[in-house]
Order: sequence, then C-alpha cells, then structure tokens
Amino acid sequence: MKALGPIPAGYEAVGGVLAVAGRPVTEWVEEAGQTPLFLYSADLIRARVAHLRAAMPERLALHYAVKANPFRPVLEVFAGLVDGFDIASGGELAIVQQAGLPSARISFAGPGKRDRELEAAIAAGVTLNLESEAEAHRALTIADTLGMTPRLAIRVNPSFDLKGSGMKMGGGAKPFGLDAERVPALAREIVAAGAEWRGFHLFAGSQALDADAIADTQAQAIALATQLTREAGLPLPHCNLGGGMGIPYFPGDTPVDAAHVGERLGAQFAALPDELRDTEFCLELGRYLVGEAGVYLTRIVDRKVSHGEVFLITDGGMHHQLAASGNFGTVVRRNYPVAIANRFGAEVAEEASVVGCLCTPLDRLADKAGFPPADVGDLVAVFCAGAYGASASPSAFLGQGPACEMLV
Amino acid sequence: MKALGPIPAGYEAVGGVLAVAGRPVTEWVEEAGQTPLFLYSADLIRARVAHLRAAMPERLALHYAVKANPFRPVLEVFAGLVDGFDIASGGELAIVQQAGLPSARISFAGPGKRDRELEAAIAAGVTLNLESEAEAHRALTIADTLGMTPRLAIRVNPSFDLKGSGMKMGGGAKPFGLDAERVPALAREIVAAGAEWRGFHLFAGSQALDADAIADTQAQAIALATQLTREAGLPLPHCNLGGGMGIPYFPGDTPVDAAHVGERLGAQFAALPDELRDTEFCLELGRYLVGEAGVYLTRIVDRKVSHGEVFLITDGGMHHQLAASGNFGTVVRRNYPVAIANRFGAEVAEEASVVGCLCTPLDRLADKAGFPPADVGDLVAVFCAGAYGASASPSAFLGQGPACEMLV
Repeated sequence: MKALGPIPAGYEAVGGVLAVAGRPVTEWVEEAGQTPLFLYSADLIRARVAHLRAAMPERLALHYAVKANPFRPVLEVFAGLVDGFDIASGGELAIVQQAGLPSARISFAGPGKRDRELEAAIAAGVTLNLESEAEAHRALTIADTLGMTPRLAIRVNPSFDLKGSGMKMGGGAKPFGLDAERVPALAREIVAAGAEWRGFHLFAGSQALDADAIADTQAQAIALATQLTREAGLPLPHCNLGGGMGIPYFPGDTPVDAAHVGERLGAQFAALPDELRDTEFCLELGRYLVGEAGVYLTRIVDRKVSHGEVFLITDGGMHHQLAASGNFGTVVRRNYPVAIANRFGAEVAEEASVVGCLCTPLDRLADKAGFPPADVGDLVAVFCAGAYGASASPSAFLGQGPACEMLV
Repeated sequence: MKALGPIPAGYEAVGGVLAVAGRPVTEWVEEAGQTPLFLYSADLIRARVAHLRAAMPERLALHYAVKANPFRPVLEVFAGLVDGFDIASGGELAIVQQAGLPSARISFAGPGKRDRELEAAIAAGVTLNLESEAEAHRALTIADTLGMTPRLAIRVNPSFDLKGSGMKMGGGAKPFGLDAERVPALAREIVAAGAEWRGFHLFAGSQALDADAIADTQAQAIALATQLTREAGLPLPHCNLGGGMGIPYFPGDTPVDAAHVGERLGAQFAALPDELRDTEFCLELGRYLVGEAGVYLTRIVDRKVSHGEVFLITDGGMHHQLAASGNFGTVVRRNYPVAIANRFGAEVAEEASVVGCLCTPLDRLADKAGFPPADVGDLVAVFCAGAYGASASPSAFLGQGPACEMLV
C-alpha cells in the first residue's frame, strides 16, 4: 500500500463528511449542482495570511502571485489582505483589472513579454520586472510612444538557487532575468532614460519546505541586492525577495516553519546597510497562500476490480488536476493527500487506486493507497488543490471541459 | 549539443522558409494574423490515410480517434477518409455531432462514463464500448427508459500489452475494460437483455514504432477475440483491434513499417476461423493519422545569453505544447523535432534552448540543440504538433489562452 500525502490543517469532519467553512462538502456540491468542483475557503486564505503576517517582520510586504489561482473571487479576497499582486502575462493583467485591483500595486514578470503586453502594462502604470536588456529597450520605446513614464524594475538571475526547491529559478544559465553582473549598467541606463526606478526582483526558486534554506536564500538575495545597489549607485525603492515557501504535498513532507523564516528575516532587516534602510521588501507568494485552501471534489462513477486491484473511477481527473496526476514536472509519481470526502476519517479498509475518467493510463489521482470502503456516488477529495489546479490543467482534453469553481 | 527529433516527411523549404501546402509558413502566419499558430495540413492527412490504406488488407476498416485532434475542420477532412470515429466523452460526442458526422459510425470508450453521457450516446445510436458490468447495467437501464435498443460492445482488458508502446493499456490490472475471463458472461447477458451486440474493443497500447510488436499484438488480439467469441457462443460483428501505431518524436526514432504490419495482418485475416469470417475489423488511430500533419509556430520575442548559454524566448510554450515540453507522461525529457521555420534547412551555427513565455523552468520546447542563427521576430516550428497538442495542453495557464488553429 502506498502512502498518501498529509491532509492540510483546517479540514475536519462534520457528521462523518469533510467540511469546508463549517458545512459538509456534500452540501457545497449540491449547491454547485455538479462535480467536479474546486472549492476554495476564504477563511483558510485569511488564516494563512494572518499566520504569515504574525511570523514575518512588520516591514515586509506580501504580494500574491496571481498565477497560482486567478479565480476572480479568490483575487477579491486577497485584495483586502495583501500589499500587491504579481502577474505573468497580459491575460493576467486583464484579469486583475477586471477584478478592480489597483495597478499601482501590480508588478509583471515573465520572460517573453510581447509588445502589446508591455504597452498595456505601461499604460496601466504596472511595474515591469525587466527580463533582458532588449525588453528594457522595447519598454522604453513603447513608453515614449505612449508619453508615459514607465515603472521599471530589473529581474536578477542570481548565481545562487534555493536549496531543496521544487522549481529552481536561479543558479546558472536561465531564461529568467539578467545575469547579476549586467544589472547595474542596465539600472543606470533606464534611470538615465527617465524611467521610474522600482528596484530588483530576485526569485531563486519555489516550493521549498526547509525554513533555513529559505532564510539562507533571502539572506543571499539581500546581500546581492546590496551589492548591485552599490554598483549601480542608485537608491533601492523596492526589493522583491521572491517566493520559495512551499506546502506539503507528499508523504513525509512537513510545513515550512514560517516563524523561523520570519525570525531570520527580522535579523537580516535589523542589520541592513544604509543603502537599503528605506527599501520596501516583499515576498511574492502564490501556492503558500492559497494551495492548501482549496479542495477538488469528484464523484465516483464506477468501482471495478481488475486482476484483484480495486479502481475507483471518478468524473474528474488530470484534465483538472495535472499536477496531482504526477504529470507536471514530476519525475517520480507520489500521491497527493486524497480522501473519501463523505467517509472522512473513517478507517482504512482496502487498497484502491483513484483514477479519472480519461481514457489514458496517465489519469491517476491516487495510486494503490488505503481508503475506507468506497463506492459509486461517493465523493473523492483531492487536497492542496487551491494552487496550480484549475488553471494549470488541460481542461479541454478529451472533450471534458473545465470544472466548476466556488469560493466559500 | 543535444539532438532534435526527426522532422517528419512532407516538409520542405520554399525560398528558405518552411512550407505547408506549398506556401511558406510566414504567409500562413500573416493570414492567421497571430502567433502561436497550429497549422494542420489536409494534404498530409490525406496522404497518410492513403499510405495506410495501401498498406493494409482491404477488409480492414479505419477509425479516427477524435481525442488526438478534435478541431472541427480536421474532423471534416477525416469524414471523407475513414470508416468511423471513436470518442471518449460526451463533450466529444457533441463535437462530432456538430461536425455532422453520422452517429452510426461512432463508438464511445472511456472508463468513467456518466449517466448523462450514456444517455446522449444511446439516444444518438452511438456504439458504447462498455468498460465494466456496472456500466453495462446502467446503459441497459437508460436504454430501457429511453425505449431504445442500445448498441453495445465490450472493451476487453487483455492479459498482454503492446511491447515498446508509450502508453500501455493492457497487461495486468487496469481501469480500462473488463478482465478477459469476465467478458463472455457479460456478452451473453447484454444480448439476452435485447441489446444490439457490436463485439469487442481490444486496446493494448499506443505509440509503438516496432512493426513486429504491433503485428504480434494484433495477432494476440485476434486470438483472444476468437476465444472469447467461442466462449460467449455469439457471433462477432465488429472487432476493434485498437491503435498502437505511433510516430517518431525523438532522436533515433524511425517510422512504423506500415507495409509490414499490413502484410502480417493480411496473413492473420487469411487464416481466420469460421466464427470470425464475417467480422468487420478496424484499427482506431489518432496520433498516427494526424500527428505529423501539424506544426506549431511561435515567434521569438527575445534572444538572450545567460552564463554563456543562448535562450530563444518565444510567445508560445508548454500551455500549447505540454508534451513537447516534456511534461506529459515523460520520465526523461528529450527534444521533439524543432526548427527555425524562416531559416529552414540553414546550417546549424550555434547551440540554443528554445523556451516559452511562461514564468516557469518547465516551459522548454528545445533543450541545448543546434540551430541556425535566430533572433527576435523569427518563427520557431515545433513538428509532430497535429495530435495531443492544442487540446491536451493547459491553455489557460498563466493567463495565456488558446493558440490559433488553422487547417490548410
């Protein structure tokens, strides 16, 4: 029997049924009128942000990375909780504008920004995290044509990476940002061209769970920002320290010790050099803020036994949960936290695999794991579905279409 | 320098530019008005079907698996070329109905069919490939309610798999079909219940390139169909031998020897037992028929050098080409066939990586491969984009949205 990932804190049973926002998910499914359903909890988002605020130094700003979950009601919850939003495309710019988020609190990173995306962002007053000299020149030309002063920061490709991170975004040759040694010259050039100088974006990696590794990377980022600021001979109004804080997905994973990250960052802040005394520092977090606040609910359509193995076949699958199926940057497939939602907390009675409705062997949500007895009509819950779920999966695959999404 | 996959036959340069249907792709992109663009060639689809028909015994029917590419103009080309269509969901049923394809030529396989999908399929007269006893009972009940005679076949989970296939769909415990030993009893039961008996669906695997492995599997499928037919004591009107024939994606891959598969299948047909003399046999192919007929075109937005490595950053990426990025059931990432479309056939001048515009290290279309000198504005072509591209990728990821698709 293979282990399942750890169920996040904040989920309990009401009358034997998994509850979200105090109500059994069976009721939420009834209200939605369909499965599969992504159910996001505003309370859990608020609790996570509060937990992080309490752990972090007061001067640290928190940004939400829209790519993690761009569902509009989720953005509206974050609007009252965080200090800024980070977007990754012109499409995300349109989404945050439709949600009424103030452009002055938005920054835009991404290695392949098209001219029309630069134009829309500059016109809106969004800060651009420049990824190359060529992009800087395009931005300056477009701003000139628009008669606008562009708000420009530089994304730095740091020479260090975040140890143990699921996604390394620094340390060696990368398509992201400028190699550090070229940053001061470009900073001086864009300031000389009349841009509003917004500082640095340093993103070394994401989805790490080791607090010391995260804190070490933050210390390296601050040291690098200091060095680059001195070399550039410019002030540093803003410094985005990236993300890095991950969530437990797999057996054996444990949550990040946020208090420890906060303590070490506080010590860093207390020892800042003069040049960075007035710098606004922020963390840019997506998955950490919203990942555990979402659950994906899918109904069992068939239960079958093949060569002695039990398969619970659901009406959902990898077209909504690509990462949970193990097909999103995964080398060795491991099980996410998965449960039978209407028998939540019941004793394990058998080994079963939970599969999706797609006609492909890739479509597996839990492999040979222990579950209470489950049958047709039961609801399967896949946890950690709040980030990189609905928007990061191929919803049109095999003609299936998107899942329903609800914030409660 | 890492190798690229082999460029499929049928692509040539016109004035130094990759041509499709005799015209340079630069003109097709201009006509589409945008990149990224999936460009599908009706001529290449027709040529592939003609090649296959010539190789295969005359009595073999050819079905198109809609899941490979459900773009409506592609379906309309196939409508005049193949003998049937295989669908995998109610969504695909709606797509083929909108394209005006005759329901009597459609069959529906998929392990998690919902009641409403069974109902729509039965009402339309589509053949259901039953995946379990429970699904059979649901189908019979629904047909009864509708006052219809359902057209039912049974999908068999064979005890053999297709050697060397990219996707194994048989051999051991599977969520697909019924274990062979339970098939005769269910066949007799559904015939006794008044259903129209349509026979067997035997799908042992897909994406194989070894002609003998494919032919061996077909021989095993015919032997199994014979045995099950005898045990059931029923005629066998139809036998779907599955797919299996793949296309070369990666360095070293070579095309399937279709003539050899056809010769061996012809020998099998010549030696059929009496019970299968009048059986209609078909192959169900998707990727093999349409995969090489499509090319994905994306424009270079930035060219940058990081730590001495060249990155060509495009306006496309894994949100349209999940499989080419190596994130779709791949263990070791290898390069698809990729070229600079407007310098097609030009000499290799440097090592570069082609990446997408997404802010994730997963978004890589070609890794450290040899290309002619390429710069901003050039077009990158990713070949083998006709199947499992547009519909099998997370197009909403990072707010990007779908690519344009054109059949020419």
